[in-house]
Amino acid sequence: ARPRVGYFYSGKKTMTSVTESMMNLKVKDFQSLPVVVSENMTVYDAIVHMFLEDVGTLFVVDENTLLQGVLSRKDLLRTSIGSQDLNTIPVHIIMTRMPNIVYCKKTDSLIVAAKKLIERQVDSLPVVHETDKGFEIVGRLTKTNITKAFISLAETHDL
Amino acid sequence: ARPRVGYFYSGKKTMTSVTESMMNLKVKDFQSLPVVVSENMTVYDAIVHMFLEDVGTLFVVDENTLLQGVLSRKDLLRTSIGSQDLNTIPVHIIMTRMPNIVYCKKTDSLIVAAKKLIERQVDSLPVVHETDKGFEIVGRLTKTNITKAFISLAETHDL
Repeated sequence: ARPRVGYFYSGKKTMTSVTESMMNLKVKDFQSLPVVVSENMTVYDAIVHMFLEDVGTLFVVDENTLLQGVLSRKDLLRTSIGSQDLNTIPVHIIMTRMPNIVYCKKTDSLIVAAKKLIERQVDSLPVVHETDKGFEIVGRLTKTNITKAFISLAETHDL
Repeated sequence: ARPRVGYFYSGKKTMTSVTESMMNLKVKDFQSLPVVVSENMTVYDAIVHMFLEDVGTLFVVDENTLLQGVLSRKDLLRTSIGSQDLNTIPVHIIMTRMPNIVYCKKTDSLIVAAKKLIERQVDSLPVVHETDKGFEIVGRLTKTNITKAFISLAETHDL
């Protein structure tokens, strides 16, 4: 029942914007704030911190706030059913370290970052800024952010 | 440097397919297999089961395999740092129950399901089939599935 008048104009507009929207989506447009803990925090405290901050991943930093490790909810759950005392074991014992950390940069394409999340089977990527001394953490990119991007793409175009 | 010849045809094709792709995506096209446990499984065994099956959410069923509850990695982590003995507490004590379970159906729009995941702040939706007796579980829809849909949308259109 949509009138044919204006169809091609409207169509072309939708085409341009959906396609370009996807190409132009950047990590920085959808990233969340990072939550960091120090290397010597205990696993117990890290779990409590994760609940207080309501995130699924914590980034571990050294005294210069440079990225040293990543702690997922899965890492913490695995440790919590182990035989170690959660109140004495520090997070640096169980965290994922470089070169095994999968990361992205704020100007990266969101599509490329989404592929990293899937291919490397991680919940979250630290968004990093590379310096001479190491990686500063400027954000956190999760599948929640990608899901929000998916929704916003649909909403922008009134699907 | 793209020749102008064919520009409008190519553009129109992209428009139609990106837009229609998003509208036509259904839960059933992206859902994963559900992993279920019984109401009387201990929390410890459920955690082990979650690792063995490599999922982030378990669905709890009764003796008729009807949906009774949902267990997230977050629920299990919260319980694991509590004072209760994980080897004696059954999952039905800590699971999310109806009417608090957020679910979807296999013919639902993927966009609508994605919105449920975000608005209700859950990691996963059981994909259910409604019967006179209750909900049978036919799938599991997660933010990983939505992220894969996002990627496939981009890949289909060579972005």
